[in-house]
Parts: sequence; C-alpha cells; structure tokens
Amino acid sequence: MKVYQKAIRLGERKRGFHLITREVVEAFPEIREIKSGICQVFIQHTSASLSINENADPTVRMDFEMFFSKTISENDPDYLHDYEGADDMPAHIKASLLGCSVSIPIHNGRLALGTWQGIYFGEHRNAGGSRNLILTAWGETY
Amino acid sequence: MKVYQKAIRLGERKRGFHLITREVVEAFPEIREIKSGICQVFIQHTSASLSINENADPTVRMDFEMFFSKTISENDPDYLHDYEGADDMPAHIKASLLGCSVSIPIHNGRLALGTWQGIYFGEHRNAGGSRNLILTAWGETY
Amino acid sequence: MKVYQKAIRLGERKRGFHLITREVVEAFPEIREIKSGICQVFIQHTSASLSINENADPTVRMDFEMFFSKTISENDPDYLHDYEGADDMPAHIKASLLGCSVSIPIHNGRLALGTWQGIYFGEHRNAGGSRNLILTAWGETY
Repeated sequence: MKVYQKAIRLGERKRGFHLITREVVEAFPEIREIKSGICQVFIQHTSASLSINENADPTVRMDFEMFFSKTISENDPDYLHDYEGADDMPAHIKASLLGCSVSIPIHNGRLALGTWQGIYFGEHRNAGGSRNLILTAWGETY
Repeated sequence: MKVYQKAIRLGERKRGFHLITREVVEAFPEIREIKSGICQVFIQHTSASLSINENADPTVRMDFEMFFSKTISENDPDYLHDYEGADDMPAHIKASLLGCSVSIPIHNGRLALGTWQGIYFGEHRNAGGSRNLILTAWGETY
Repeated sequence: MKVYQKAIRLGERKRGFHLITREVVEAFPEIREIKSGICQVFIQHTSASLSINENADPTVRMDFEMFFSKTISENDPDYLHDYEGADDMPAHIKASLLGCSVSIPIHNGRLALGTWQGIYFGEHRNAGGSRNLILTAWGETY
C-alpha cells in the first residue's frame, strides 16, 4: 500500500462546467504506479464543485449551467449573505449540492471511469480566479 | 493494509430507486477480511446514481422518484442536449446531484451503516439496461 | 500505511446547518499521526447530512437552511411517506442531496481544507436527537 499526494492549480475558467479529466491525469502520473486503489480529487473552495458526468457532448455541460442557475436563484430576497455579489450565495449552494470531491477507483494503473464518464469542474462564480485541487491516490502498487 | 477490488454487474431495474445493500455485500465477501477500513461502491454511468437512505419503508424510495422527477423537468425547452430522449438530460442532472459513489466505513468485517441506512441505486433512464459497479475495499485486515 | 477509526456522538442541535470542524478534529487527534492520507467523516443517519462549505459568516448556514427548506416542500400532497411528520420526507431528500459523508485530504498531520472550508452538519429533523459519526483516517504515518 502506498499514498501519493499532490497539489495542483487550475487556471481560471469562466462560470459553468468544464471537463478536467485529462488535466488531472496528466498532472498525476503516479496513478500509473497503482494496480488497485482509489484516486481522490478535492477542491479547496466553497463556490466551485467537482462531479462526474458525460464526457462527450458539450451541450450536457451547458445544460448543467442552465439548470443549476435557473433552479438556484441569484436574487432570492430571502438571502441574508449577499454582500459578496448576487452570484455568491447560489455558488455556495451549488458547491454543496454537487460536492467538493470525487473518488474514482484505480484499476491497473488507470482511472476506472466508465466510457462516458469525465470529471466536471463547476465554476460557480462569475470571476472565480484560479482554483486549488489536492490529488490523493492510494492502493497496491506494482 | 490491503485493498480488494471487484467489478459486478447490476441487472436492469426499472426507473426509480432500488435498495442494493444485500446484493453488494453478498458479491463482496472480502469485506469480512477487514477489521477497520472503507468500502467504496462506484457506478460507471452518468444517468444512474448511488446514495444512502432509508432501508425500511419502500414509500421513501417512491417519494424520491416522485420528488426528483417533479423537480428536474423532462421537457424544459432550454435543454440543448435532447436527442437521446426526454429522460436523458434529467437523468444526467440527477446522477450528479446524488452522486456516482458511496463510501462506507467497515468496522469488524461489516459495513458500519446506521440501523436505517441502505445503499440506493437510482436508475434515472426509462430503459437503462444493466449497470456496472466497481467495489473497492481497503483497510487493516485480521 | 495505517488506519484509525473512531465513533463519536454529536449532541442534539436544532434544525439547520452547524459547523463541526473543530469538534471532529478535537475528537480525532490521530489525524496528526498521518503525513499524507484522507480523513472520512460518516454520519449513520438518513435525515441528517454532512457537507463542506463556508466556515466564516453564519448567514451562509442560515441561507442553506432557508434554501433547502423552501426548495424541498414539507407538505407536498404527493408524498406517500408522511406518517413520521411533515419534516421527515424532506429530511430524507436533503440527506441524499447533500450526502452522508465527507472525505478530506490529510497533509502533514492536518486536514487540508481550504481557508474558507469547514464541515457542515445538517440537522434536517425538527427534533433529531443526538447523532452518531464514524471517523476513519488512513495514510502514511510519520
């Protein structure tokens, strides 16, 4: 059993959902050392999210942005926490609904994602800046 | 420390929420080897989900299906991704809201679920077919 | 590689979202033994949740309670599971939307949370009583 851990920085993306599978895998070649285990990706922020969804058609990501922004209103007069901008409180709610980490099995040195699965980075602020990820992988090595 | 990993296939279920705790445990007797650790169940699909909820009254599962299908509309004219059927885009959204994995502590060779907790498989397509799960358990063995 | 595991009990909190980071860390000094790994916090209940969000302004927690209680109606006539009270079925739905565990990287003996991140305990019943958590940490020790 071994653990690998690394911090990486995602360059600023515009608000919406972005596929980051390749960026994660390329930043973390240690995954290849693991025969059987898990890779966790964790985001150290409260207004951005990580989830897993369809890696092919970009309209799925656009529909995610549409759905979440329509469902979680920016201007609910009941919000008390509004001094950081109208996009702030909805961003916190989206972050907790979607989650701040994904944990993916590693099998034979590769992420055991299904054919259509990819890692989504959800940027929920209008100008979120760059974002920090912690990558941790553990398991039996070769 | 040891890692066990196994792929299993869930037979097709109808759309809705289904309790799969027993099926997972029976397919993965290696859990009993672990004194203290974690079991992760991961689903390799983007239109089905895994979560944990009440294992007793089946009406909870029916109310889940009612709530999620009412809240995430099938015919939102704003969906761009609609060529795979009206149930497709809502299925992707439900999958990310609920998640594609659950991680459960193992204590003394058993899943340390609370009295009322069970593993829910959410089938969000009208005809999802069979589904692949990856089971991974790690921890200190006896 | 080593695994630490411990059960703790959270005293009853009123319905809403509560920051429990300090309580978890103080109950689990074994985290300091781990140089590189993960800490999982798991709640053994189906009407309470764990998630990660802003640790500073308490109005974020109030807005969470407002948002989730407004979005997940207490008196939907379509609920079949209603004999445990109007707050019960919404509590189950909130628990699965937010999740029953959080997994946080450990780096150099500390939880590698972002500056603004804290652990939220969501009590979704009007009178939930005390709640059981299982803490599990694994990784390379010093």
